[in-house]
Amino acid sequence: MKKEDAISLDHGSGGRASHELITRVFLPGFDNALLDSLEDSTVFEVGDHRMAFSTDSYTVDPIFFPGGDIGCLAVHGTVNDIAMRGAEPLYLSVGFIIEEGFPMADLERILKSMKEAADTAGVQIITGDTKVVNRGSVDKIFINTSGIGIIKSKSDIAGKNARVGDSVLVSGTMGDHGVAVLSMREGLSFKAPIQSDSAPLNGLVADMMAASDMIHAMRDPTRGGLVTTLNEIALQSDVGIELVEDQIPLREGVEGACELLGLDPLYLANEGKLIAFVDPADVQKVLETMKKNPYGRESVVIGTVVAENQGKVFMKTGIGGTRILDMLTGEQLPRIC
Amino acid sequence: MKKEDAISLDHGSGGRASHELITRVFLPGFDNALLDSLEDSTVFEVGDHRMAFSTDSYTVDPIFFPGGDIGCLAVHGTVNDIAMRGAEPLYLSVGFIIEEGFPMADLERILKSMKEAADTAGVQIITGDTKVVNRGSVDKIFINTSGIGIIKSKSDIAGKNARVGDSVLVSGTMGDHGVAVLSMREGLSFKAPIQSDSAPLNGLVADMMAASDMIHAMRDPTRGGLVTTLNEIALQSDVGIELVEDQIPLREGVEGACELLGLDPLYLANEGKLIAFVDPADVQKVLETMKKNPYGRESVVIGTVVAENQGKVFMKTGIGGTRILDMLTGEQLPRIC
Repeated sequence: MKKEDAISLDHGSGGRASHELITRVFLPGFDNALLDSLEDSTVFEVGDHRMAFSTDSYTVDPIFFPGGDIGCLAVHGTVNDIAMRGAEPLYLSVGFIIEEGFPMADLERILKSMKEAADTAGVQIITGDTKVVNRGSVDKIFINTSGIGIIKSKSDIAGKNARVGDSVLVSGTMGDHGVAVLSMREGLSFKAPIQSDSAPLNGLVADMMAASDMIHAMRDPTRGGLVTTLNEIALQSDVGIELVEDQIPLREGVEGACELLGLDPLYLANEGKLIAFVDPADVQKVLETMKKNPYGRESVVIGTVVAENQGKVFMKTGIGGTRILDMLTGEQLPRIC
Repeated sequence: MKKEDAISLDHGSGGRASHELITRVFLPGFDNALLDSLEDSTVFEVGDHRMAFSTDSYTVDPIFFPGGDIGCLAVHGTVNDIAMRGAEPLYLSVGFIIEEGFPMADLERILKSMKEAADTAGVQIITGDTKVVNRGSVDKIFINTSGIGIIKSKSDIAGKNARVGDSVLVSGTMGDHGVAVLSMREGLSFKAPIQSDSAPLNGLVADMMAASDMIHAMRDPTRGGLVTTLNEIALQSDVGIELVEDQIPLREGVEGACELLGLDPLYLANEGKLIAFVDPADVQKVLETMKKNPYGRESVVIGTVVAENQGKVFMKTGIGGTRILDMLTGEQLPRIC
């Protein structure tokens, strides 16, 4: 079989190959206008209500890692995908696929973590399914969560709505989750172990939306990291995005680990951070609001939306140069979430 | 590790061990009233609207089988779970977990099958997610679908609402899907190969609800088959269910294959059949309506709800005896759906 005739790890990276699989195979395959939106969650209407619907499968390896586990990750990830449309997450479904022989104690630990994460986020897990497959048919446990939220504001927050002039904000340091999982998987130990940032962002989003109705786009930079996510928005909104290198917050340990491992933290997954595109008139107000929330204390403006270089992300470097930041090509970290 | 300390295939059978895992581990773990309903889908309210939400993961092996494949099965299964609450299915999510190296042509074939199934059922797949995992971390492809529906009638159709005196109807022959998948997996060939009954039942349900507002409970007998599903309803409604053996429709080839394989067709999965509990006053009307629908042509009354033997299912046999039909114990067929 030729390489292009088979699914590769690249197709799951969240980067260029994923993007191509979605636009060339999935969208034409399913062919409907709502799916075409290519957002983290899809908005539909029921009577006068606007609702958001999202799904994600979690295959992270290892299933327990510093700062979290596959259970809380599965709750946070879907809660966040719903929140990124400005929706209030209400209900989750959960689907477990479990390998025969999986320890009951680990399952109970995962359930406890999911329950705590759901309680903290203020959502309810209301429907579920469990499949058990023969040994070797799945690696330990995979979890799918889908979620439903309700949009109470009139805003249309979407990846296609970033505007020239918008400030680009991030809610904290980049790459923590990726480094936490990879360090654990590779058996690396650092003096100060990096914790995953896995966290629910719906409260932060609610605070931001209460402070401003000029938030145009939001997204959580998971697979493919900050740069891949910004590339998606640049494409969807048909704008350029200019970042200032020195402004992007990185934890010291993450920088060190990335140098050691030859990874770029700007392409590493985050599971408790968001990017927001905000009208310049409201930026200070939104930034101050974010900093007051426990999940936004290190929020900062990292760039601006520009009319040039449509569909591209570029970086002003510390030494005064400019370089293009492309989508992730190839799979940096399989099974990171 | 002791047997009870690990997940076994029995826990995924849909039978007694599944029931125990759900009631002892999942329900206390997640602890909320909506999940406690233990229905195929959970009903929640948004403003004046009643909606149904459901999820299922599909791990069927082989992925292509006579009469269907994992793609159409994933659409039909969730459409049917929503329809069983009397809801009109509207939107589905899809989450793929794919093994590295999976043929692109097979993925495209599955997508095409999902699209056709969704079109036939009149639902839209509006949000999705794809994970690719390393070779050996999953067997080929697993699919999760979750779905949202809207309940337009005032009826509360639920497994807890079967009433003494209700007639028990089934919409056709039992065990076809189980035998189709198992024959393919085991490489058995029959003169007339048994086809899976995988089909969307929302149209049939809509017809039935238009004909009567005295349908008290419905469920599709998937994993664990007819008898396990009836046991669930007997428990939830706190009633006895009396079946008449000669009335239960079986395809000749299914009976033959089951004899050969030592399986009981009444415990085998169906993927395009429903059981309905209907007030005796409306039974004839509902039965005639069902027979007019392409997915209900072989509908028949198979039993009655009685006050005795609460929580149990029993069968009047051809020779005039009576025997208790317990939930499936042990895993008859792993990865059947």
